[in-house]
Amino acid sequence: MRQHLEEFEVEGAGKGLVEITAQVARCVADSKVSEGLCTVFVRHTSASLIIQENADPSVRRDLENFLDKLVPEGDPDYTHTEEGLDDMPAHIKGALTATSLGVPVMGGRLALGTWQGIFLWEHRRRRSGRKVVVQVMGQG
Amino acid sequence: MRQHLEEFEVEGAGKGLVEITAQVARCVADSKVSEGLCTVFVRHTSASLIIQENADPSVRRDLENFLDKLVPEGDPDYTHTEEGLDDMPAHIKGALTATSLGVPVMGGRLALGTWQGIFLWEHRRRRSGRKVVVQVMGQG
Amino acid sequence: MRQHLEEFEVEGAGKGLVEITAQVARCVADSKVSEGLCTVFVRHTSASLIIQENADPSVRRDLENFLDKLVPEGDPDYTHTEEGLDDMPAHIKGALTATSLGVPVMGGRLALGTWQGIFLWEHRRRRSGRKVVVQVMGQG
Repeated sequence: MRQHLEEFEVEGAGKGLVEITAQVARCVADSKVSEGLCTVFVRHTSASLIIQENADPSVRRDLENFLDKLVPEGDPDYTHTEEGLDDMPAHIKGALTATSLGVPVMGGRLALGTWQGIFLWEHRRRRSGRKVVVQVMGQG
Repeated sequence: MRQHLEEFEVEGAGKGLVEITAQVARCVADSKVSEGLCTVFVRHTSASLIIQENADPSVRRDLENFLDKLVPEGDPDYTHTEEGLDDMPAHIKGALTATSLGVPVMGGRLALGTWQGIFLWEHRRRRSGRKVVVQVMGQG
Repeated sequence: MRQHLEEFEVEGAGKGLVEITAQVARCVADSKVSEGLCTVFVRHTSASLIIQENADPSVRRDLENFLDKLVPEGDPDYTHTEEGLDDMPAHIKGALTATSLGVPVMGGRLALGTWQGIFLWEHRRRRSGRKVVVQVMGQG
């Protein structure tokens, strides 16, 4: 059994989905694991992870818009307000999406479907440098 | 350490939850792993995975109904519309539920609770043949 | 490769987030794994798991309040009503959050970010004794 553990930073440009499939795929290649499991983990509570369509950008735009409407800024019921209007919505959006993802490795590659990409979902307006940990484990 | 990696297709009948606990349990049995981890992964972005009550079908019906109301078809804000009225809602529903699940293996069996079943959640009206990958890893 | 598998019970006090980071961290310490993966799994369908801010309690209060408003009790569309007003909302809240979490282990510790804590989210008013399974696997 082999293992590979790596942390990298994702530079974003404000709110939205940033594709990280290539960085995760490189970790799998570096691991020399041919069959196993790749776990992706984000070390933050106001950004999250998602596997979604990587072909048509309108899907990502509509996803972001839906979540913005579901979890609006400025809800008078929020009591956690001192870190900015976008902070509490960011925590809720993080809670409704994923902090960790497990993707099987087959034939030395991520077993993603044809249209699947792995994305970091930044929920804050002005944050960057999000830390992602990738752990790969399996047979060489 | 042993490992087992398998892909199977789930034949659905349109929108709704399809129980796949038996297929996943068979992968665990075939793996001969007695203590470890079973990861279930769906290779699509308009279907997802969920662990929910497998006893009373009214729970599943109410779950489906809730998500249909939360993510309605025909929202005029959607811009991704060319693949059908049910396509963008399907992506959003997928984003709000799980693409991968990790279930510990204990005593050679999935460590599910008494009322837990593993389901594929089909969000499209007329799709079928969804690909699911199961990866089992641990001690024999 | 080492492995550790353990089940423990979480005593709650009704609806809300109960931090279990210390119990999960103890499982990782007991596993003697220095680099690997820790999977946390809840064996119930009306309680769930979440990684969220463990510093300011107002974040957790706002999270609970948001989910209570999104999934209200007493929706006349619910058909699964015989187990109490809070039961069907509990299943839906479980479906929108996580049943399993994967956290990498680095240097013998959970790779959580500075502000991340692991929580059991109890969605029922009067349930307690929720079973959580922790599985740790990796290099010693």
